[in-house]
Amino acid sequence: MRMSNRITGFQTSPIRRLVPLSRKAEERGIHVIHLNIGQPDIKTPKEAIDAIRSYDKPYIAYGISEGDYELRRALVKYYEKFGITDITPENIMITTGASEAFQFVFLTLCDPYDEFIVPEPYYTNVATFANVCMVKLSPVTSSSSNGFILPSIDAFEDKINKKTMGILLCSPNNPTGHIYSQKELKAILELCKKHDIFLVVDEVYREFCYDNKKFTSILSFPEYADRIICIDSFSKRFSMCGARVGAIVTKNREFLDNAIKMAQARLCPPNVAQLAAVAALNAPDSYVKDVVAEYEKRRNLLVGMVQKIEGVRVNMPKGAFYFIADLPVDDAEKFAVFMLKDFSYKGATVMFAPAEDFYWTHGLGRSQARFAYVLNEDELEMAAECLKEGLKAYRKEVMHI
Amino acid sequence: MRMSNRITGFQTSPIRRLVPLSRKAEERGIHVIHLNIGQPDIKTPKEAIDAIRSYDKPYIAYGISEGDYELRRALVKYYEKFGITDITPENIMITTGASEAFQFVFLTLCDPYDEFIVPEPYYTNVATFANVCMVKLSPVTSSSSNGFILPSIDAFEDKINKKTMGILLCSPNNPTGHIYSQKELKAILELCKKHDIFLVVDEVYREFCYDNKKFTSILSFPEYADRIICIDSFSKRFSMCGARVGAIVTKNREFLDNAIKMAQARLCPPNVAQLAAVAALNAPDSYVKDVVAEYEKRRNLLVGMVQKIEGVRVNMPKGAFYFIADLPVDDAEKFAVFMLKDFSYKGATVMFAPAEDFYWTHGLGRSQARFAYVLNEDELEMAAECLKEGLKAYRKEVMHI
Repeated sequence: MRMSNRITGFQTSPIRRLVPLSRKAEERGIHVIHLNIGQPDIKTPKEAIDAIRSYDKPYIAYGISEGDYELRRALVKYYEKFGITDITPENIMITTGASEAFQFVFLTLCDPYDEFIVPEPYYTNVATFANVCMVKLSPVTSSSSNGFILPSIDAFEDKINKKTMGILLCSPNNPTGHIYSQKELKAILELCKKHDIFLVVDEVYREFCYDNKKFTSILSFPEYADRIICIDSFSKRFSMCGARVGAIVTKNREFLDNAIKMAQARLCPPNVAQLAAVAALNAPDSYVKDVVAEYEKRRNLLVGMVQKIEGVRVNMPKGAFYFIADLPVDDAEKFAVFMLKDFSYKGATVMFAPAEDFYWTHGLGRSQARFAYVLNEDELEMAAECLKEGLKAYRKEVMHI
Repeated sequence: MRMSNRITGFQTSPIRRLVPLSRKAEERGIHVIHLNIGQPDIKTPKEAIDAIRSYDKPYIAYGISEGDYELRRALVKYYEKFGITDITPENIMITTGASEAFQFVFLTLCDPYDEFIVPEPYYTNVATFANVCMVKLSPVTSSSSNGFILPSIDAFEDKINKKTMGILLCSPNNPTGHIYSQKELKAILELCKKHDIFLVVDEVYREFCYDNKKFTSILSFPEYADRIICIDSFSKRFSMCGARVGAIVTKNREFLDNAIKMAQARLCPPNVAQLAAVAALNAPDSYVKDVVAEYEKRRNLLVGMVQKIEGVRVNMPKGAFYFIADLPVDDAEKFAVFMLKDFSYKGATVMFAPAEDFYWTHGLGRSQARFAYVLNEDELEMAAECLKEGLKAYRKEVMHI
């Protein structure tokens, strides 16, 4: 029976196709170390778990479509810690994870065949949301050779046409770890102003900045406020990925008034999770600080070890908890399959995300992979060893080098 | 700044526009009785609340995109109680409420300008989802004069063209309370087979059947299984609307394989809520039975009282917890505004949903309203009195009759 071209027209991502192989490896008794997904093993703040455990309402009622007022007020206070003082609860819409925020942004701004410019590699699910909403992503390639800094403004401007509705950034960046500087953001905002388009910035990794590197939020540019949309999420910051609480923050009233039509149709974001989110925001600041210190240690360990593997090129990522590595292989997906199907070292193997899926341009990223350093140091150490031995084996057995 | 036509092109529904008026009335100290929304005041099963309160995981991790396996297995057992024995966990996808299920169905089946046939009046949010997905709803009008039974098969067949991807029903019906009979469903399935299109049935009110009326699930027609998609939800059955747990059930593998692409991009349905859903399914059968008996009592009380109001026409609804009433007014929205702005009786007023929004065809439903009988009997009694007095006042003061 006929189904829609918009869905049948694209394939499930390679990462998803690897999942059954990983399950089979585990069934064979192999310890698969999952560096393929940003699922931290870090505890959710006790305050958030306690909020869930002390749920005391007789029934789980619909909440407000824009999100619980208390949560939006708590977010306002949270942004104040970053020196952002002009956000009110009315500028915030709570979403079912950042995932829903992306969909609301694309649907509110774009009709089919409209375009959004995005530096590649990008957060791969953005491509699915764009496909489903029939938005054409227009990629500007950032390069591992210079640490994935913002491509030139000219490269962005070249992509702007009548169908361009906005530019989408992610800072700190998944998958590259780059943190966009105040100067980079200002330049891109000027471009957006010149062409009267939106700038959407995914800041779900806001706190995850290492080496004391300063983070600049897109919400700290009030003079461009009407074209700025910030996407946020509780998932990574508070290790509560499964709660599904995110947010859209913008001073553009018309945008929110339109997005709310969709928010109302889907009724409300999950309710118990929002109580946990309020509690997480009220946890001591030391929680996030300690978590970030832990990730910094993990980054230093894993990237340090991977950098030493012959033929592998990695820049030290500055933020988030991912990095893109250039691997000495013909095809990172083939190599990933090999690691899960035909390889183990000391009873273990490593699963990672082939990077092709993080690029819109066909053929790019074929020998790259994305690694998440969200596991504890013992696991990461083992993972790096597996990668080293796996590369040797793959190059010998498959590439015959 | 330019935004998408698909969102800017439609208005917020009148119900939403009434909300600020209702808040203002409450600020003036008036007790507003909310019959406008299906938000029950009935307790969630203790088992579900306990599951939330005993959450004992250190962190809230991503779940499986298709939904927790345990929940899908519990649903299989639940369907067995209805004599549906051929559903497996692989036929089920857990969604973030039925809301997400509607979106997945439209997006998986329809490209822009494809069509879905739906009897009107229908669940109003379906129209927003259709608008956002750029699906054209093709309405077949059901009539209050015969209790909103299924319109003739010919009326459906007249609407079928090359762009028609399926027919959407809701049984027991929101907003009419009609329960589609085995015969009606069989006839519509034959039509779907003849034209090779899908039948989607929203069964979120499955248990809410009164006067011992038998319910026939669309899942009990295995011979048409490949064209059947059932939408389900925990919201109403277990009074957990804010949990946001729903489901798509279908034997059509290709459909699920395509829908899963979207499910994977949005990562997973809310996690703690899924634990509560499993526990709710394991609550004693008496829970739902008692709830249904309570709604039957409420229905009898409210419909009985409203039927006695001069000029009002209502059929006794057979299921769900809503009814559509023909009111002796020029414009039900104007009357709703009057009730909130200019009227109170014994310190109270009643809020209801003007029915125009439940119709796709322009002009239909203008003098109709939808009422939900989800509140306790004292409230319902007061609501009926307010409605009676309000109608008198409106007809005299506004219509000058």
